[in-house]
Amino acid sequence: MNIDKHVSLNINIRGLNQSPTIAINERSKKLECEGHKIYRLGLGQSPFPVPSSVVRALKMHAHEKDYLPSRGLPELCKTVAEFHRRKDQLNVQPQNVLIGPGSKELMFLLQLVFYGEIILPTPCWVSYAPQAKILGKKVKLIHTSFENKWRVTPEQLEEFFKSEHDVYMPRIFVLTYPSNPDGGSYSVDELKKIAEIARKYEVILLSDEIYGQLHYRGEHVSVAKFYPEGTIVSSGLSKWCGAGGWRLGTFAFPSELSWLMDAMVSVASETYTSVSAPIQYAAIRAFKGGIKIERYLWHVRRILENLSKQCIEILKQRGIRVHSPVGGFYLFIDFTPVVDRLAKKGITNSAILCERLLQETGVAILPGVEFQRPVKELTARLAYVDFDGARVLAASETIPLDQKLPNKIIQTNCENVIEATKKIADWISKD
Amino acid sequence: MNIDKHVSLNINIRGLNQSPTIAINERSKKLECEGHKIYRLGLGQSPFPVPSSVVRALKMHAHEKDYLPSRGLPELCKTVAEFHRRKDQLNVQPQNVLIGPGSKELMFLLQLVFYGEIILPTPCWVSYAPQAKILGKKVKLIHTSFENKWRVTPEQLEEFFKSEHDVYMPRIFVLTYPSNPDGGSYSVDELKKIAEIARKYEVILLSDEIYGQLHYRGEHVSVAKFYPEGTIVSSGLSKWCGAGGWRLGTFAFPSELSWLMDAMVSVASETYTSVSAPIQYAAIRAFKGGIKIERYLWHVRRILENLSKQCIEILKQRGIRVHSPVGGFYLFIDFTPVVDRLAKKGITNSAILCERLLQETGVAILPGVEFQRPVKELTARLAYVDFDGARVLAASETIPLDQKLPNKIIQTNCENVIEATKKIADWISKD
Repeated sequence: MNIDKHVSLNINIRGLNQSPTIAINERSKKLECEGHKIYRLGLGQSPFPVPSSVVRALKMHAHEKDYLPSRGLPELCKTVAEFHRRKDQLNVQPQNVLIGPGSKELMFLLQLVFYGEIILPTPCWVSYAPQAKILGKKVKLIHTSFENKWRVTPEQLEEFFKSEHDVYMPRIFVLTYPSNPDGGSYSVDELKKIAEIARKYEVILLSDEIYGQLHYRGEHVSVAKFYPEGTIVSSGLSKWCGAGGWRLGTFAFPSELSWLMDAMVSVASETYTSVSAPIQYAAIRAFKGGIKIERYLWHVRRILENLSKQCIEILKQRGIRVHSPVGGFYLFIDFTPVVDRLAKKGITNSAILCERLLQETGVAILPGVEFQRPVKELTARLAYVDFDGARVLAASETIPLDQKLPNKIIQTNCENVIEATKKIADWISKD
Repeated sequence: MNIDKHVSLNINIRGLNQSPTIAINERSKKLECEGHKIYRLGLGQSPFPVPSSVVRALKMHAHEKDYLPSRGLPELCKTVAEFHRRKDQLNVQPQNVLIGPGSKELMFLLQLVFYGEIILPTPCWVSYAPQAKILGKKVKLIHTSFENKWRVTPEQLEEFFKSEHDVYMPRIFVLTYPSNPDGGSYSVDELKKIAEIARKYEVILLSDEIYGQLHYRGEHVSVAKFYPEGTIVSSGLSKWCGAGGWRLGTFAFPSELSWLMDAMVSVASETYTSVSAPIQYAAIRAFKGGIKIERYLWHVRRILENLSKQCIEILKQRGIRVHSPVGGFYLFIDFTPVVDRLAKKGITNSAILCERLLQETGVAILPGVEFQRPVKELTARLAYVDFDGARVLAASETIPLDQKLPNKIIQTNCENVIEATKKIADWISKD
């Protein structure tokens, strides 16, 4: 944003850029229009089509035009509650479900209405901190490490709260798993311990589980099982259902936090009013699930897991550090082992790293600094999504789900991702 | 909202209720479910179906699933710019059009990013002031009067700015016409004078013209013609296109205010991201217009005008004051002439008035206080929309558009509205 010095802007907004994921997407498109070959591994958009039954449901409800309740269409709230009961064994009540135009908007409303601090383990999703900045709120970071697989440890968490001057300061602690940006997750034991600490310090947990259905073994476990009274579970259609552009996110509250939900509903009614009606009707179909959607999910998981393995192999061969994801579609790459080689190229932080990579190879990935990592750390997020999801899905369907997906299918159908990863590896190796 | 005293809520949010229009809609539905006969004249929702070509367009684009740019789908921005050029003779550039999930959300973002005061003539739309409250912003009111047809006069406006301590304080002045809540509008001469004053005091005009296409004679004029460099024109699909529940609003900026738009786009990218993709594709069809949509508009206008006249006649017979609307679907009723009779019923403000009316007759309308009128003033907004828009539209289509619509067609097809108006009149007259 290149603004005049004397415009009358909210000081929290000045210097705020577009969300980096959205910005890299728009920039990639622009570069492509100018004739450059761009590998779009910046924006974390599911490449898979929306399941056909869900698209059909949208067509069936295209005429729905009434303003819906700000909390959400009652039947959809009921279906989302059942979804969490079925998938996560959580006792969610329909009246405690909130539907929003994306979970990002719901997180913003949560930050807006809640009076307290936001605690983020890093690397964390790109928008939590900018949202706090917009609202003039405080954020505190807990940096994790490659060695701990980018996971916050219960010990770290305990240490953090213990060392705060005001132990019982109102706080929201945000947990995202399977993780954006690194695809890692927590063990049941870790979740139990985190839940215990949250309960001890009376911290609200915002559990962002939007990638839960993309756990490659279908073994996602919600921390809300162990801290039901203090956990808000966030989900939506964007990732597992391939419908990011539809804009529908969900929050499931415990009844103990209905004061937070009620406040959010009030603000919703004065801002976006309610989520688009046809989209809400169609979402009922998505959250109802069924055998076809379950099969779709297993194909998607098998494809993503295979692709992630091939990418990792390429990167590791050149000495780049990266952990194997257990779900989602991100790798969080750590270039620390090749820091000297990068320094020779004049690359001393993650922003320069990604900019130079884009300019010199056409590969768009996002710098670690956008995920609140230290400025000089040479990390970046690679979203392995630049392929035609429909094409590879159809190819995967030719191989029964009880068999391993041949690497060849991925190599043939996700060639851009593989090629881009090789380009990164080659670029690193070149002097 | 009945919240615990000790919850940790943003102080600007405490005591904030749901938007009164949304709340009255949800309350009306609830009362109906409990078996009461409710006349729903509270929420301002167009009762007409979305034009069939637009519904078809949504079906055709149901599979669109990509995140779109935060500013809006480029082709839609182009179409909206052309719409304003064609309809309002405004020289709007596609890159100065912003698409949001409802114009309400865009107004909220505008208030969020703008550092300055908001000036509202009253009665004004219900959400401007609560949005300011949420953001902890200052609002200043300019009260208009029944005698001036609820219009702010250029003299009043000049007087207001002149008497301010800081004449050049950054300010947005909001103008809504055809008006919600009173259906009135401004003459070209008035608009020119208002534009002149706005220019003189360097005030940004937010011109909310969402009812522009529902001007009964198709003679809506935008103030942006006379103050192009300082006017933001707000519109959307909700009113003229019957698609309130779809959630799509538009802002058209002058290039001089692109710093405001850019800041809003940044916040959009960190909150709702972008408007639902299938909805944006369908909206292109709506804003393109064409002969069928124009005919639809003329039928809608003829129906609404006839209905408004019949309602006004009923009210005026009992001594209630109300002006004839020139567009939209609202009457702003002034019960001042019957204040003594109401006082005997124990009714001393507009909130009690509407509550008692609802309880005793089942007619839901909104109190004047929600439109920022003085608490004790006995005014209320009646939205004449509780009828089956498809049914009356089909009936209207049997009468050529060059003829007057027979009152009988309205009486037969909008019976709820007529009946509700009679109930108000009878209730007032009863001791």
